[in-house]
Amino acid sequence: MAPTFLIGLDFGTESARGVLVDVATGRQEAYHVHRYRHGVVTGRLGGTALPPGFALQVPADYLEAAEAILAAIGRGREVAAIGLDFTASSPMPALADGTALADLMPEEPHAQVKLWKHSAQAEADRLGAAGGDFLADFGGKVSGEWLLAKAAEIATAAPEVWARTERFLEAGDWLVRRLSGREARSLDFAAYKAQWREGAGYPAVDVPGLSERLAPPLPVGSPAGRLTDDWAARTGILGSPVVAVAVIDSHVVLPAIGAVGAGGFVGALGTSAAFLLLGAERRPLPAGLEGAAFGAVLPGIWCAEAGQAAFGDMLGWFVRTFPRGGSVAESFAAYDAEAAALPPGAGGLVALDWFGGNRIPLADANLSGLILGLGLATSAAEIYRALVESLCLGTRSILELAEAAGVPVTRVVMTSGLARRSPFLLDTLADVLNRPVEVPDVDNPTALGAALHGAVAAGVVPDFPAAAARWGARTASVHAPDRERASTYDALFAEYRRLAGDPEIRAAMHALKALGRRR
Amino acid sequence: MAPTFLIGLDFGTESARGVLVDVATGRQEAYHVHRYRHGVVTGRLGGTALPPGFALQVPADYLEAAEAILAAIGRGREVAAIGLDFTASSPMPALADGTALADLMPEEPHAQVKLWKHSAQAEADRLGAAGGDFLADFGGKVSGEWLLAKAAEIATAAPEVWARTERFLEAGDWLVRRLSGREARSLDFAAYKAQWREGAGYPAVDVPGLSERLAPPLPVGSPAGRLTDDWAARTGILGSPVVAVAVIDSHVVLPAIGAVGAGGFVGALGTSAAFLLLGAERRPLPAGLEGAAFGAVLPGIWCAEAGQAAFGDMLGWFVRTFPRGGSVAESFAAYDAEAAALPPGAGGLVALDWFGGNRIPLADANLSGLILGLGLATSAAEIYRALVESLCLGTRSILELAEAAGVPVTRVVMTSGLARRSPFLLDTLADVLNRPVEVPDVDNPTALGAALHGAVAAGVVPDFPAAAARWGARTASVHAPDRERASTYDALFAEYRRLAGDPEIRAAMHALKALGRRR
Repeated sequence: MAPTFLIGLDFGTESARGVLVDVATGRQEAYHVHRYRHGVVTGRLGGTALPPGFALQVPADYLEAAEAILAAIGRGREVAAIGLDFTASSPMPALADGTALADLMPEEPHAQVKLWKHSAQAEADRLGAAGGDFLADFGGKVSGEWLLAKAAEIATAAPEVWARTERFLEAGDWLVRRLSGREARSLDFAAYKAQWREGAGYPAVDVPGLSERLAPPLPVGSPAGRLTDDWAARTGILGSPVVAVAVIDSHVVLPAIGAVGAGGFVGALGTSAAFLLLGAERRPLPAGLEGAAFGAVLPGIWCAEAGQAAFGDMLGWFVRTFPRGGSVAESFAAYDAEAAALPPGAGGLVALDWFGGNRIPLADANLSGLILGLGLATSAAEIYRALVESLCLGTRSILELAEAAGVPVTRVVMTSGLARRSPFLLDTLADVLNRPVEVPDVDNPTALGAALHGAVAAGVVPDFPAAAARWGARTASVHAPDRERASTYDALFAEYRRLAGDPEIRAAMHALKALGRRR
Repeated sequence: MAPTFLIGLDFGTESARGVLVDVATGRQEAYHVHRYRHGVVTGRLGGTALPPGFALQVPADYLEAAEAILAAIGRGREVAAIGLDFTASSPMPALADGTALADLMPEEPHAQVKLWKHSAQAEADRLGAAGGDFLADFGGKVSGEWLLAKAAEIATAAPEVWARTERFLEAGDWLVRRLSGREARSLDFAAYKAQWREGAGYPAVDVPGLSERLAPPLPVGSPAGRLTDDWAARTGILGSPVVAVAVIDSHVVLPAIGAVGAGGFVGALGTSAAFLLLGAERRPLPAGLEGAAFGAVLPGIWCAEAGQAAFGDMLGWFVRTFPRGGSVAESFAAYDAEAAALPPGAGGLVALDWFGGNRIPLADANLSGLILGLGLATSAAEIYRALVESLCLGTRSILELAEAAGVPVTRVVMTSGLARRSPFLLDTLADVLNRPVEVPDVDNPTALGAALHGAVAAGVVPDFPAAAARWGARTASVHAPDRERASTYDALFAEYRRLAGDPEIRAAMHALKALGRRR
């Protein structure tokens, strides 16, 4: 019998990538990356100047990428399922038949995809001021990145576009619609980006006609439909695969790394850091965290989101500003090696990891980085180590918010490139958290996670734990904490908290930002 | 008629140097440097291990240096006067006839010169706890660097040495004794380092027999006597020059730079910074400053001392830790040029200049440096500029203590190598202080100042203003403040003060120092 495959598609900010997984062996047999033709559109859209802060994408780019990837890895293969993940919230207007409004109005900014990092802040502030029950699960504030705010922005700024909008949906949901021919909105996107709640549905915010343009969501791991004959013909894929409902890119990794149960604290350490806190019970949002929903990232799992605004980019800043080698990678390696040989809190330094502002718990982009304890004997490696430590202390302060809210954390799992590249960083994190930190051994975990969503949707396995057991990471590097170093970090964390909690320091940061802007 | 000369001798920490000045033209005709044979003695003295913190010198080294320098620059010259300055407080035990006890007990640590940076802290704490009127002029604390504490240390730790001590005197006074054959203690050393006061004399501290080992002081600019025939024969100096009473090295520069009147704020910017605040009236010590006396640095002038623990060495630390060129000088030049092109408070940074602790007003060696406002776009030059600015903000906080105490400051004069090497630093200082800053154009100002003390003592001129007018700096580089930059610095200074005054920040610094020591 010919082997059967799963396909996972991961739609990121600059490009999309796909992985082909052998159902029987779990091996990744093919991998393909395709950059979007128009990338992220800022400044101008064709002949139209864009306001500052606008960050758009062109929906046709996703179709082009999907076709290229599916053909490259799937042609002639028997495929059981296709899952896909997408950035969020990246919503767009469409007609009921799935036609993107952008195809009809290619020069109209408000007809395009408003990428996750496009922030409709003015509309968010207006909606937030109106309040609403749903805000309790999201820290009391409407984000300019949400679908709700972006819908409001179109309705206000481009009523003629809004009038032609029959469906307003996440680009991920739209792509599922195009691949399967069926509209099947994802509960994951709906819950975290359109604030849909069990029982209450979408919130009744003041955007005329919004509710008619939305649709009830389906849980992740559900089938949307099967790949249309047209797509099958164009890509050469065999077997009429099930297309799963879409998933948020930062959530999709969970089955691939085996984190499908309550008690997980799962981090993606990249230029910034994103964390998921998994629980078994519906509960209020822990104070200071960003958003929570039940049953949206995985069926039966409650999940709260959190993050650090700057993470790898803070270390990248240091090694680029004060290089130690010919390349950035050489500088990283040199600093990592030298800093790893130092004791915790070397040189009596402590830093605040707010180089990109603070997300948790202060949600304040006008904060900035601080280094304290400098002396005439301070070395560059000590400063680098202090920055690494500050990132880990920042992670600890997030984890402690979860614990303070009574959410048990039984596993810490870190993923993404940075986690696998810098054992020193992960060792430090284990010592600072005083917990073992797991880094699963798995390639392309995001795209693999999407493939596993497909497998569940297609019924190849009954549920996510079964998918994780069968195709997820088999092994992990475990970074164990050292008791003595952990005890030093307890003392260092007390100082980190002292500084983080000092209103005078925050006032100085605000004053300096204002001073910088005034010039 | 053969020209007549003045000689100024400057005894520093590692070496001594002398300058030969033509009385008629003011030209410096010769200059000679001689390093001390034993340098600074730490760790071991011959076969004897020294306790940590001991920093001694061998008196015979001063005689060797004096002879070498006087012969090198004075042989065959008609010399009217010799003045000399010395580090302080660097006291030593001697016999009544001028014999150094160190010559009799070469392996005995307590018989040697206890260099200014040797701190008899335990004895200082004991004497300080006993209190006394005299402390009001010195911020309420006895310093471990003072002659009083060092006398107490010998009496306590080496009573057999103390029993043989007939005179306990500053090494500078001892050298004058040897050159002139006459004991002539300097009021400058007595007032600032042995806390002698008009009317009260030396304080009655609990050191048995101390008062018998001291002697009443003479004002600076007084003659001690004439160079002995023996010294004249050995050095070849002609004219039987007057030897002036000794002066503290940080005070002697005043006539050479023309700062001999009230209203001067005079700084010596080196690895650390030392400031003299000159007034016309006897007055209490301004809160936060370190020590004050009337008529001691110059007749009829009140002078308070202050300083910054780290200054040039903080910038040296930065350019050595993050080099920009092959040499330190190249790195300095590169950073100076790049930072000078930036606006004040560039990048929204502010720093605390406490890399070596804080002297004024907190007198706390356990404080440390801080940089706040860091972000992912911060450049190395911005950090360098923030450090330069922090040093100037630290200077401003000292100057404002003087003004708060009602001491008028009418001139700011900066001297020493750093002041002449970095126009950028001085421009910044002028902007931060919002006052013109003068940097006198004069070579070897310290040794020249000593020569001018000689001239006054010998009656070549009637007083210090006359000496300054005749041989002091003729011109100065004046760094004028820029109104707009000064206004930005007012705002930045408010943030500097906010951070400097924040007890949480100091508590964190103390905790981190303790953490560092515990390991």
